[in-house]
Amino acid sequence: MEPGEWVTEAAAGFGMTVEIREKLCCRKSQFQTIEVYETAKLGRLLMLDGIIQLTSFDEFAYHEMMANVPLFAHGGARRVLVIGGGDGGVLRELGRHPELEELDICEIDREVIAAAREFLPGTACGFDDPRVRVHIADGSVFVRDKAGYYDVIIVDSTDPGGPGAPLFNQDFYRDLKRALRPGGVIATQSESPFLLPELVARLNAATRACFRYAGYASIMVPTYPTGMIGMSVGSDGRDVTEPALEVPPELARQLRYYNTAMHRAAFARPNFVQDMTGGR
Amino acid sequence: MEPGEWVTEAAAGFGMTVEIREKLCCRKSQFQTIEVYETAKLGRLLMLDGIIQLTSFDEFAYHEMMANVPLFAHGGARRVLVIGGGDGGVLRELGRHPELEELDICEIDREVIAAAREFLPGTACGFDDPRVRVHIADGSVFVRDKAGYYDVIIVDSTDPGGPGAPLFNQDFYRDLKRALRPGGVIATQSESPFLLPELVARLNAATRACFRYAGYASIMVPTYPTGMIGMSVGSDGRDVTEPALEVPPELARQLRYYNTAMHRAAFARPNFVQDMTGGR
Repeated sequence: MEPGEWVTEAAAGFGMTVEIREKLCCRKSQFQTIEVYETAKLGRLLMLDGIIQLTSFDEFAYHEMMANVPLFAHGGARRVLVIGGGDGGVLRELGRHPELEELDICEIDREVIAAAREFLPGTACGFDDPRVRVHIADGSVFVRDKAGYYDVIIVDSTDPGGPGAPLFNQDFYRDLKRALRPGGVIATQSESPFLLPELVARLNAATRACFRYAGYASIMVPTYPTGMIGMSVGSDGRDVTEPALEVPPELARQLRYYNTAMHRAAFARPNFVQDMTGGR
Repeated sequence: MEPGEWVTEAAAGFGMTVEIREKLCCRKSQFQTIEVYETAKLGRLLMLDGIIQLTSFDEFAYHEMMANVPLFAHGGARRVLVIGGGDGGVLRELGRHPELEELDICEIDREVIAAAREFLPGTACGFDDPRVRVHIADGSVFVRDKAGYYDVIIVDSTDPGGPGAPLFNQDFYRDLKRALRPGGVIATQSESPFLLPELVARLNAATRACFRYAGYASIMVPTYPTGMIGMSVGSDGRDVTEPALEVPPELARQLRYYNTAMHRAAFARPNFVQDMTGGR
């Protein structure tokens, strides 16, 4: 290992380590410990309760997929809700879509948004879009009185250990479904099948139980443990694995990860993931 | 981080760290330092010159794809050559194919094979197949007098820093092409586009320059840096991104990663990889 300071996120006998230059921020909010580092090679790094949430280096992969897979699975979305996502990265990607009319975000921890605005401007610029309305609340409660309102709901949660715990319950998935307009699509952060197979199986089962069409997609994100993360996608409207629209050229030029082929390919699952999520 | 001993492979400001129980082997061969560890949670781990080559936990992903993508891209292979691959993992996957007649391996370092046989029996069992013939030689020299002999050549190399350096030259790709029978397919370990973009671009360009059909495929391997690794595949025979055959049921039951959908999906490339490898 090279000299210098490193921050490490390790669990289950292996993990990621990142060389840092400087700790920019360490705050304890009502919900969690928020840290931002200047890294040696990966730009800024955000940790919540010691778990890497993003680095400037590779957050584009996660945020582009979390935003664009449900939008293109839908094909005509106008009203979108993000639950969690206080760093603003999913909002930034949604903001590239001029056809969207309402961009609501429900983040439980206002201190995450404040830290992101201060230390992660390249991600938190998502909040600058005039269509964005910020709700500081528990997303699992917020959706309960939004029956039939949203076209797309994106759950950009932390892991189930922290304040995001209610976002991993089957009841929450039923509430998400109720908050959708006809043809609506949900996409939820659904962990790594290499690391948390039981949780992946449960989240996938919850999606399949609630929606006629469901899929489990993989996103390559080097600085997440195991180098990838899954997304559960569900809809009663149409097959979510097939984009409803081509990517407009002016959007394609802005994207570094998402394209039509990656949309379809992300839903292909290795045999061991098929065994976990149903369908071998 | 949990207590205990950890081994870390880090470069470019980030890396992998793995908790270990015991160092089982540390030998200096003529070519490199060979280490095998018993890890806390990932089974055995093989390092060459400090670079993680495999863990028992996730080597199936890499070895199944390195063997099966070129075999199914070909569709009728009988004679296969592995260059490198001294741990035996690619041979083990090739051995699941009863139709193969010759399984040659050309590994430069006999000490790697010896260490794998002693400490990695679940991988090195690939050498037990009676069709296997072992050649201890520099693969870049070995292929030069094998004109028109092999249906499939798989280059399972280390990184270009070590004894595998000649396997990253354009000349070597021309020699591989010459060693193929008509319709032959090559597959070469081609690094991570997140970590080594210039090298990925160069290996891809070498494959495209030599072969009518070429593709760059991604494999999710959690314990490699960035959590994935690429494979360049080339042939003059047919489109390598489309399997020529279905997976026979008796083989499918043995596989944990490879399937027809994963074959196709692996060749989908994020926009930034398309920019690197040609074709956006």
